[in-house]
Amino acid sequence: MKFLHTGDWHIGKKLNGYDLLEEQSFAFQEVMKIAETEKVDGIIIAGDLYDRSVPSIEAVELFNHMLIEMNLKKGYPVFAISGNHDSATRLETGGPWYETLNFHLHTKLAQGLKPVEFGDSQLFLLPYFEPFEARAYFQDDEIRSVDQAMALVVAEMTTHFKPELKQILVSHFFVAGSEKSDSETKVMVGGLDVVPLSLLEGFDYVALGHLHHKNALQGDNARYSGSLLKYSLSEINQKKGVWLVETAGEKVSYDFIEIPPYRALLHLEEDFGTLMSPDFYQQIDREAYIAISLTDRGVIPNVMNQLRSVYPRIIQMERAFGRERELAPQRSTVALKETSPTELFSEYFKETTGEALTPRQAAWLAEEISDTQREK
Amino acid sequence: MKFLHTGDWHIGKKLNGYDLLEEQSFAFQEVMKIAETEKVDGIIIAGDLYDRSVPSIEAVELFNHMLIEMNLKKGYPVFAISGNHDSATRLETGGPWYETLNFHLHTKLAQGLKPVEFGDSQLFLLPYFEPFEARAYFQDDEIRSVDQAMALVVAEMTTHFKPELKQILVSHFFVAGSEKSDSETKVMVGGLDVVPLSLLEGFDYVALGHLHHKNALQGDNARYSGSLLKYSLSEINQKKGVWLVETAGEKVSYDFIEIPPYRALLHLEEDFGTLMSPDFYQQIDREAYIAISLTDRGVIPNVMNQLRSVYPRIIQMERAFGRERELAPQRSTVALKETSPTELFSEYFKETTGEALTPRQAAWLAEEISDTQREK
Repeated sequence: MKFLHTGDWHIGKKLNGYDLLEEQSFAFQEVMKIAETEKVDGIIIAGDLYDRSVPSIEAVELFNHMLIEMNLKKGYPVFAISGNHDSATRLETGGPWYETLNFHLHTKLAQGLKPVEFGDSQLFLLPYFEPFEARAYFQDDEIRSVDQAMALVVAEMTTHFKPELKQILVSHFFVAGSEKSDSETKVMVGGLDVVPLSLLEGFDYVALGHLHHKNALQGDNARYSGSLLKYSLSEINQKKGVWLVETAGEKVSYDFIEIPPYRALLHLEEDFGTLMSPDFYQQIDREAYIAISLTDRGVIPNVMNQLRSVYPRIIQMERAFGRERELAPQRSTVALKETSPTELFSEYFKETTGEALTPRQAAWLAEEISDTQREK
Repeated sequence: MKFLHTGDWHIGKKLNGYDLLEEQSFAFQEVMKIAETEKVDGIIIAGDLYDRSVPSIEAVELFNHMLIEMNLKKGYPVFAISGNHDSATRLETGGPWYETLNFHLHTKLAQGLKPVEFGDSQLFLLPYFEPFEARAYFQDDEIRSVDQAMALVVAEMTTHFKPELKQILVSHFFVAGSEKSDSETKVMVGGLDVVPLSLLEGFDYVALGHLHHKNALQGDNARYSGSLLKYSLSEINQKKGVWLVETAGEKVSYDFIEIPPYRALLHLEEDFGTLMSPDFYQQIDREAYIAISLTDRGVIPNVMNQLRSVYPRIIQMERAFGRERELAPQRSTVALKETSPTELFSEYFKETTGEALTPRQAAWLAEEISDTQREK
């Protein structure tokens, strides 16, 4: 069997206020093209189909269209789960009817424990769940976290394993455990509800959703799909696409196929003059989503409107010189109270800009402070 | 064919803050019992399945359960449309899969124009629609109202009529036209977007939803289902239930089957002392939803809490003596400006209570007004 593994579609998500439905629709069509070219036998969607528990009407419209396209028109079997961004209850409407056409959408823990048999594979479609759901299902009040629950979940799944078939787990949570990315992942998730990959070694392939980076986990038998699009500036250098998972050999093999972005995501760190100069901006993909770090210090009147006249999709603008601020040492409240306003402002200026006040600036400051105090 | 005609379920609706999910679940079970006893061939639901375009999670849960029960477990074919309270787009998720199991849920105008053939009948499932949808479909910018659109809708439907079959229209809007209830209906709907029943005379039966009274229209070939429950105090004297529609004879025949309420809806007009007296309240179904009109005039401390200790489900409380107020003549703003505060208050008191101020009350009033004016 050949599966296409995707996930984290987040239909309806906005990028700093910009609607991404057009981008999502484009990426979906690319997924369909890959499915067709590669003649896949089924499509796995590892959760977070929607971005919100109550998606907008427009998001529902696009998602309805996608489901019809995949399963009804093109006839692909679909193996999907709800993620933490989805409302399991809202998503499950229609589920029992979907099954009749080989569209399996699991939204409850109990559904995930029994496999869907398909060709040479058993697919366990385990939706995102909260510990309380596991406590109720296993009648075990000791379960406090997803990783505790997972030991029981995997044990129950294992009882259904058929040795002549491959076992695929489709799931949506934090998994950590490989040599390479262990520390990286731990930093990212803060150690909360992390499922150790070693617990999942019985599966031939673990099709994960949740983390948006396709390389977030480097296990032999497990991959994150990565998100459908770049959904935040932190994903600027990540490649997006789908995994092709082949179960035919002794071991399950997988390959990543990239999907080109419909619009690029760029970060420009320049001064205002450069950004506004045709010599510069004619070299830039101005239709991209653009984050700007301005290196200027001075006041620029109407800066956003001026920049937008050249770059229509600015998702963020910051002053580049302000970024050191985070590294400045914290003072205690007591210490702050004992500092004079002049001193306080001077230090704030220095922390923010990295430079001391010029004598002229210091004179202005003194004048303003004395005015303010007189007015009381 | 024998159809059960219901509608206006409004799943998730609250009655003055009280959750009705338990009542709705009970009434649904009664509908199922009638379907079973009467061996109906299909269930018609004439719109307003949900009460809101974004129903609560609990409402979605109950509704999902109902659909599974009706169509998947009991195997009834279902013929349903969206009403003005539903979000057509949210409701249509799953629709194309439902069709495979004879569950027809139409949410778009275009879907309603072609019949679903079932046994000896053609069912036109016409959802609630707005004039703009008709303008787009018929490419006619002159369409400004639903009644204008309906002439075109019916004309197109008629082209699909098969003379050997019965034609049933399932729809959700205001229809008026019979001799008996014409004036009543016109008062109720204010003449806006009213479809004349004469336009629908080509149908053997028109299964309507929208108005909550099963007798809102007395046409020979048309009936409102009425709502599943009493959803407002104005429905206090209405019987709720379903129509059984039989297509076998020369003419379609129909019968109403009542569903007993899970909790009654009562209106009590009494003084406080009576309401709180065991001799009185032991005769009353205190578990009912109760609207109270207090005939007392005096101040009663903590009145709601006292009443609630006896009647746990008070949906409304008013002072009975205040009700004449609505009949009092309106004054113009100019006239009000020329009236003294004392005169104004005296008249207000009289309008509200039906009595003039006593000399003592008049003295208090004069004192208060003079105090107030001094303080300025």
